[in-house]
Amino acid sequence: MSLSAVLDRIDADLDPALDRLMAFLRIPSISTDPAYDGDTRRAAAWLRDELESLGCSAELRETTGHPMVVAHTGGEGRPVLFYGHYDVQPVDPIELWHRGPFDPAIEDQDGARVIRGRGAADDKGQLMTFVEACRAWKAVHGSLPGNVTFLFEGEEESGSPSLVPFLEANREELSKDVALICDTGLFARDKPGIVTQLRGLLGEEVVVKAASKDLHSGSFGGVATNPIKALTKILAQLHDDTGRVTIPGFYDGVPDLPEDLRTQWEGLGFDASAFLSGVGLTTPAGETDRTALEQIWSRPTAEINGIRGGYAGQGFKTVLPAEAAAKISFRLVGQQDPHAIRESFRKMVHAMLPADCKVEFHDHGASPASVMNTSDPAFEAARTALSQEWPNEAAYIGAGGSIPIAGYFQEILGMDSMLIGFGRDDDQIHSPNEKYDVASFHRGARSWARILDAISNGQSSSHTQT
Amino acid sequence: MSLSAVLDRIDADLDPALDRLMAFLRIPSISTDPAYDGDTRRAAAWLRDELESLGCSAELRETTGHPMVVAHTGGEGRPVLFYGHYDVQPVDPIELWHRGPFDPAIEDQDGARVIRGRGAADDKGQLMTFVEACRAWKAVHGSLPGNVTFLFEGEEESGSPSLVPFLEANREELSKDVALICDTGLFARDKPGIVTQLRGLLGEEVVVKAASKDLHSGSFGGVATNPIKALTKILAQLHDDTGRVTIPGFYDGVPDLPEDLRTQWEGLGFDASAFLSGVGLTTPAGETDRTALEQIWSRPTAEINGIRGGYAGQGFKTVLPAEAAAKISFRLVGQQDPHAIRESFRKMVHAMLPADCKVEFHDHGASPASVMNTSDPAFEAARTALSQEWPNEAAYIGAGGSIPIAGYFQEILGMDSMLIGFGRDDDQIHSPNEKYDVASFHRGARSWARILDAISNGQSSSHTQT
Repeated sequence: MSLSAVLDRIDADLDPALDRLMAFLRIPSISTDPAYDGDTRRAAAWLRDELESLGCSAELRETTGHPMVVAHTGGEGRPVLFYGHYDVQPVDPIELWHRGPFDPAIEDQDGARVIRGRGAADDKGQLMTFVEACRAWKAVHGSLPGNVTFLFEGEEESGSPSLVPFLEANREELSKDVALICDTGLFARDKPGIVTQLRGLLGEEVVVKAASKDLHSGSFGGVATNPIKALTKILAQLHDDTGRVTIPGFYDGVPDLPEDLRTQWEGLGFDASAFLSGVGLTTPAGETDRTALEQIWSRPTAEINGIRGGYAGQGFKTVLPAEAAAKISFRLVGQQDPHAIRESFRKMVHAMLPADCKVEFHDHGASPASVMNTSDPAFEAARTALSQEWPNEAAYIGAGGSIPIAGYFQEILGMDSMLIGFGRDDDQIHSPNEKYDVASFHRGARSWARILDAISNGQSSSHTQT
Repeated sequence: MSLSAVLDRIDADLDPALDRLMAFLRIPSISTDPAYDGDTRRAAAWLRDELESLGCSAELRETTGHPMVVAHTGGEGRPVLFYGHYDVQPVDPIELWHRGPFDPAIEDQDGARVIRGRGAADDKGQLMTFVEACRAWKAVHGSLPGNVTFLFEGEEESGSPSLVPFLEANREELSKDVALICDTGLFARDKPGIVTQLRGLLGEEVVVKAASKDLHSGSFGGVATNPIKALTKILAQLHDDTGRVTIPGFYDGVPDLPEDLRTQWEGLGFDASAFLSGVGLTTPAGETDRTALEQIWSRPTAEINGIRGGYAGQGFKTVLPAEAAAKISFRLVGQQDPHAIRESFRKMVHAMLPADCKVEFHDHGASPASVMNTSDPAFEAARTALSQEWPNEAAYIGAGGSIPIAGYFQEILGMDSMLIGFGRDDDQIHSPNEKYDVASFHRGARSWARILDAISNGQSSSHTQT
């Protein structure tokens, strides 16, 4: 009864809700680039004001980097924490955007209305589905639902350096029964999922240095060692011919996929050809003895995300450069230890360095994988609520992308997370022309209203019992 | 008698000559970058005006790229052609320059006076040694020496695309007894050389393309092919463990070093350790069974001059990029065929491409190696003249850098070249903080006065006899 009024309100308020999201998307909160520090803070302040307009007492909480936004509704029901991030990825290559990344608009795409702009899907549009569900609830009932704590981070796209210290320093305030995270996708077009296993992420940067300055390749070529050559020889050995990562000990702690999950996943009818053809590819790469879905959800990977060295601009320059560098990320699963892998990787690189080459490493974050315990009744309550909103039943699924926050919530706050999101495979997150379907935004807000209703009506567990 | 007055005049005129060079160095004539097209043309016009001030009728001659500057002195003596280039290399990495690359100055360096700025040594400072020798001659004698044609190019640092058509179209006008080229270095600090063998140069750019757009490495990593990985695996196979280039047929046409030249070169006392330690290195790389000097002067090489792909800026981006690219140059010797090697290289790359990767190649020029016939008496005349100016006897030497013009002069104009220059190994050409010693500039001008005197007093050969 009360829920249906909230859902009606969400429907009626869709256009103003989209206007609010547009204002948020216009703020270029690129956390990894110091040039955007002011804008990133502005995005935090915008969110704080939104939460205050809902009647919460919201605050910017300082860190050594970008601030956290924290707010509490108080109230009855199981205490839950909702997490999202207000920062976004860089926008390059900028020339491939068909409109300014921070000049968002509603556009038609293949007959559907989409919200175009950096952060539309990752994560501003998604986190606003939750905020809009709360707003509708407050409009109908005069108060916010359940007992919700909001935590919005501004460093998710740059390795979350402040997050762990912040969670550790505010353990009491932030530990709840369960966390809700909106930063993932639908399993398929009209089929939502709750992610229950997440890969970890390890980021490394390798800088190979040789001569004390750039040299002329005619005067020094051959005789002077070339750091690009050294780097390519190292990177070329990261994978063997079967697609396995060659770092010693890399597969320590990688579990076999449990048979029941394998069966469930096979039943999902994932179409690897369609998945790849959507981005112009035809043939699954990677481990030759694993299915595509198994690789994305449950296998570790090593990918080179960037490389630079010498002259790569217009024309040609016969330079033998002083250094070359690459950024490499590892997706981790099961009990893989990010720190052990980092050490083993660095040792392997050192062992492959030719004479006269030195190496520097830069640490770009490390988070282990995590697997949720779905026996908490909140999981089934949420799955049922989602199944009521969408045409197809919601499934427990894996996720390829890493959302380290879920691991930190387990380790530091002792709570599992329900990762529920409404993104689609063609949202182009981290890429030019990122978008979020208006249908995802609308149904997303309705989904959260249903989930909040289901959870807050449920039993409270540890936090009220001990 | 007349020569000594010219030499005195060069000594007396050194400061004004340096001022003229500074004006030339202030023009940022980076030929490879279209943003500097106007400046590159301005450098050509500046040179034309200089030659006209010497009483030549000088012209800018249009090409499809940057113009040629051509002038003739007319007069008696053997007809010779002097060649130099007025364009310069790009300046990146700009942050490593301790002053603006186009804000030249005379500085003290280790007790010596040096001219600092892009182009100081390559090639503006060097070509001006010849112009200043002519200026002194004219001041003393009222006319220019011998029978000189000047040819200045503006595309030497960007593959000389207009040069061959220009030589072919002006064969009659430009064919002389011998060419003089000032774009090389001293053999050692006080020991000049005449380069009599030059390596060729082949420039290739490889662009590996995979997905239709940049992807998220969490959602697609492993399963979607990574073009950086494909490219590094290809580049890592360019050389085998002994430093040899693996392209099929690459060593076809590479001659053994003649025993007499090997003996001469061994007598030069080249110190590979000192050569490398000057740039912070200790150990000769490249072919394990060749000496350093042999590699630089007489062996072919393959070097990766630049590489790019994905995100290489500040911070980290978990992108799986749509493409990756590298620029590769090959130094060629003897009868190696640049076109055959290009085809073989491309075939090899195609054969190594994984599924779903496509490749594009960009041609960045091709020139064969060349070896001069030193039996023309001009060679010994010049060697004697150089030996009179410098503390040590001049030697016939090789050169690691490629100066394709010498090959074109042989092929198209039927004349050999004497490559005589006054650069030093620490001039940092193509690198930040390029410099040219004032002593090189000064003694260089005096050397050309002596050489012009020696050649113009000598016998004219083919051009007056047929």
